[in-house]
Amino acid sequence: MRAEIISVGTELLLGQIVDTNAAYLARELANLGIDVFFKQTVGDNTQRVQDAVRLALGRSEAILMTGGLGPTEDDLTVEAVAAAVGDELVHDADVAAHVRRFFESRGRVPPASVYKQALVPRQARVIPNHRGTAPGIHLERDGRMIFIMPGVPFEMDGMMREYVIPYLRTRSGSAVIGSVVLRVTGEGESAVEARIKDLIRGTTPTIAPYAKLGEVHLRITAKGAPGEVKDQLARGEALVRERLGELVYGTDEQTLEDVVGGALAAHRLTLAVSESCTGGLLAQRLTNVPGSSTYFLEGVVVYSNRAKIERLGVDPRLIEAHGAVSAEVAESMAAGIRARAEADLGVSITGIAGPAGGTPEKPVGLVFIGLAHPGGVLHRRLTFGAEPGRAGIRHLAAQAALNLLRLHLLRG
Amino acid sequence: MRAEIISVGTELLLGQIVDTNAAYLARELANLGIDVFFKQTVGDNTQRVQDAVRLALGRSEAILMTGGLGPTEDDLTVEAVAAAVGDELVHDADVAAHVRRFFESRGRVPPASVYKQALVPRQARVIPNHRGTAPGIHLERDGRMIFIMPGVPFEMDGMMREYVIPYLRTRSGSAVIGSVVLRVTGEGESAVEARIKDLIRGTTPTIAPYAKLGEVHLRITAKGAPGEVKDQLARGEALVRERLGELVYGTDEQTLEDVVGGALAAHRLTLAVSESCTGGLLAQRLTNVPGSSTYFLEGVVVYSNRAKIERLGVDPRLIEAHGAVSAEVAESMAAGIRARAEADLGVSITGIAGPAGGTPEKPVGLVFIGLAHPGGVLHRRLTFGAEPGRAGIRHLAAQAALNLLRLHLLRG
Repeated sequence: MRAEIISVGTELLLGQIVDTNAAYLARELANLGIDVFFKQTVGDNTQRVQDAVRLALGRSEAILMTGGLGPTEDDLTVEAVAAAVGDELVHDADVAAHVRRFFESRGRVPPASVYKQALVPRQARVIPNHRGTAPGIHLERDGRMIFIMPGVPFEMDGMMREYVIPYLRTRSGSAVIGSVVLRVTGEGESAVEARIKDLIRGTTPTIAPYAKLGEVHLRITAKGAPGEVKDQLARGEALVRERLGELVYGTDEQTLEDVVGGALAAHRLTLAVSESCTGGLLAQRLTNVPGSSTYFLEGVVVYSNRAKIERLGVDPRLIEAHGAVSAEVAESMAAGIRARAEADLGVSITGIAGPAGGTPEKPVGLVFIGLAHPGGVLHRRLTFGAEPGRAGIRHLAAQAALNLLRLHLLRG
Repeated sequence: MRAEIISVGTELLLGQIVDTNAAYLARELANLGIDVFFKQTVGDNTQRVQDAVRLALGRSEAILMTGGLGPTEDDLTVEAVAAAVGDELVHDADVAAHVRRFFESRGRVPPASVYKQALVPRQARVIPNHRGTAPGIHLERDGRMIFIMPGVPFEMDGMMREYVIPYLRTRSGSAVIGSVVLRVTGEGESAVEARIKDLIRGTTPTIAPYAKLGEVHLRITAKGAPGEVKDQLARGEALVRERLGELVYGTDEQTLEDVVGGALAAHRLTLAVSESCTGGLLAQRLTNVPGSSTYFLEGVVVYSNRAKIERLGVDPRLIEAHGAVSAEVAESMAAGIRARAEADLGVSITGIAGPAGGTPEKPVGLVFIGLAHPGGVLHRRLTFGAEPGRAGIRHLAAQAALNLLRLHLLRG
């Protein structure tokens, strides 16, 4: 089966928003094993929406459309599709009742304009919208399927999961595409790729690297019968893990802070952090994990030297002798926060995030990370250069601190 | 002039990457006053790229293409476009020399495959690539223009600025589109829209609201001769500011933390923050601003009650009587961090970000913000509900704290 995606919305053609809906739909179709050969984007214009639908009907079996289902005059997708397939709009009492209930349950009176959404093509099936008012539309014409969904991502996602994906599954035969993402950190993209170069050239399963800032995601993809796909993915994952070992920190949606948090909870260890150049980013990432209050005790953002001395007991002579950005101060900050918070582990970050503040000896992008644990204190010196920019250097520094913590917990 | 954008790349049709290039091109074309009526996306397939180009030639005067210019077999855009316009590929010695120099200047030997990029259509003009090896291609056919650029955003951007935009400007007449974004926070989307509803319906300039989490962006857009556009935008901005007053916190790319940082620097005031549920997010946002070390002294993330008591001097009886999430504790945290850091201003956040930890009296989404200043201490009670989720509640809480700070500084 061939599918095609049509995004409707003048704001897309003005570049005011990025078309993440189309990427979402493409991904979901790929997961179903359905090929997408074309995507179109058209503005809120009846004639051009009609033309796009006619073009798609001539070359694709399934057409997924989003956008232009709202109550305003600009929203003309349903009307245009009805015209393209020679259908007419009729009032649907069930949809009108849903719209009214949706507003009333929120203590509001529906504006008259919203009832425009109750006009649906005579031959359409309505796709229920449990997350908003605009109904989805499902039309069949000469064996071709058209699905029209709202442009609001949350509402579209609901319709895909509850209606469109299950329906397409019944129509698309038994082949599926499955994939797993292995998340890698601790080495650069080219070093990671060099280790698995021969695997990337292989075809079953395919392994594709995607470089992110501070990590690489390896997507392993297999296509075939469901059982076969599972076996292929397991084989691909085993091959990659054999090559990369500890560099693989997680799979799919797992974040580095999820993994670190899980390890801290499993070992029943507590953590406190002190940050200079990352300004709270490390604490923020750690505490973004639900349940982090069981292991995260406290964090300090010690931007000034005075705060480093008063909050963490860093010896002023250390700062004078080596500078605030130094291995000595990083270790002292880590030991200081560990002691003051009475935590099992203390982590620190001090560095130069730029854009100003660099010197030839200590350039922008130089970062020291400290880790204090029951057996002692250690540090890592990292040089990211100025190129990633302030936010990039901060991200890379927090990432490296989390990874240092992960490897420490892993090696026990 | 009508333009059309064609993105080439199977990874786009698999949803593995989001098409930010298309949004960028659309925005640049809008700024030139050129209408974009269609966008197409096709995979790395010669026939389908040809079909897309033929379709575009039939309906658009300017066709901007990105992707598929690399050295691998998958990269077939130039070949397909040449076929679509009936041209043939020839070896371009200048491009080959550029490729060789590009590698040699980096101390590397160009792989043989890269010279594929020196094959260009006989009738094409080459668009120089100062940021990579793949040349851009400019073809004219029956008054229609085709521009082919690399999919690498940095390289595409270079070609747009240096070649395509100046060229299109000479061809598109004098009308331009200009826009300004007013950033609004402190009231919900519907309340903001209600205040300017009649302006949204107006046409010159157009005013379009975009809801973000915790803020609303109002894009004012005008089209016409350059001077006229400037006047229209100024008039639109004045109208909106008259209605929304202090709710408008900034313009275009300005963030709330930029504005707060600027006000702190202007007033020569220092700041320290204490956070519970936001876990460092407030400090992180404040310190993401370059130069923030001049006004940001320190932050603490006091997740545990013990840390609130020991780090900030919060009275344990306050916590016992009112709970850690209370107006009393918020004010005590703000006063505590202000005193300990000897800062002019102290800000605090305490709340329930969820997903667990809510009770009927103190549900998920309840947040207290404290502000201690030379004249006293105040607090705000906010209820975001559970719906935004943990990360959303944290974002909204940090946003509200920054806005409280902004309004305090504004009112002196």
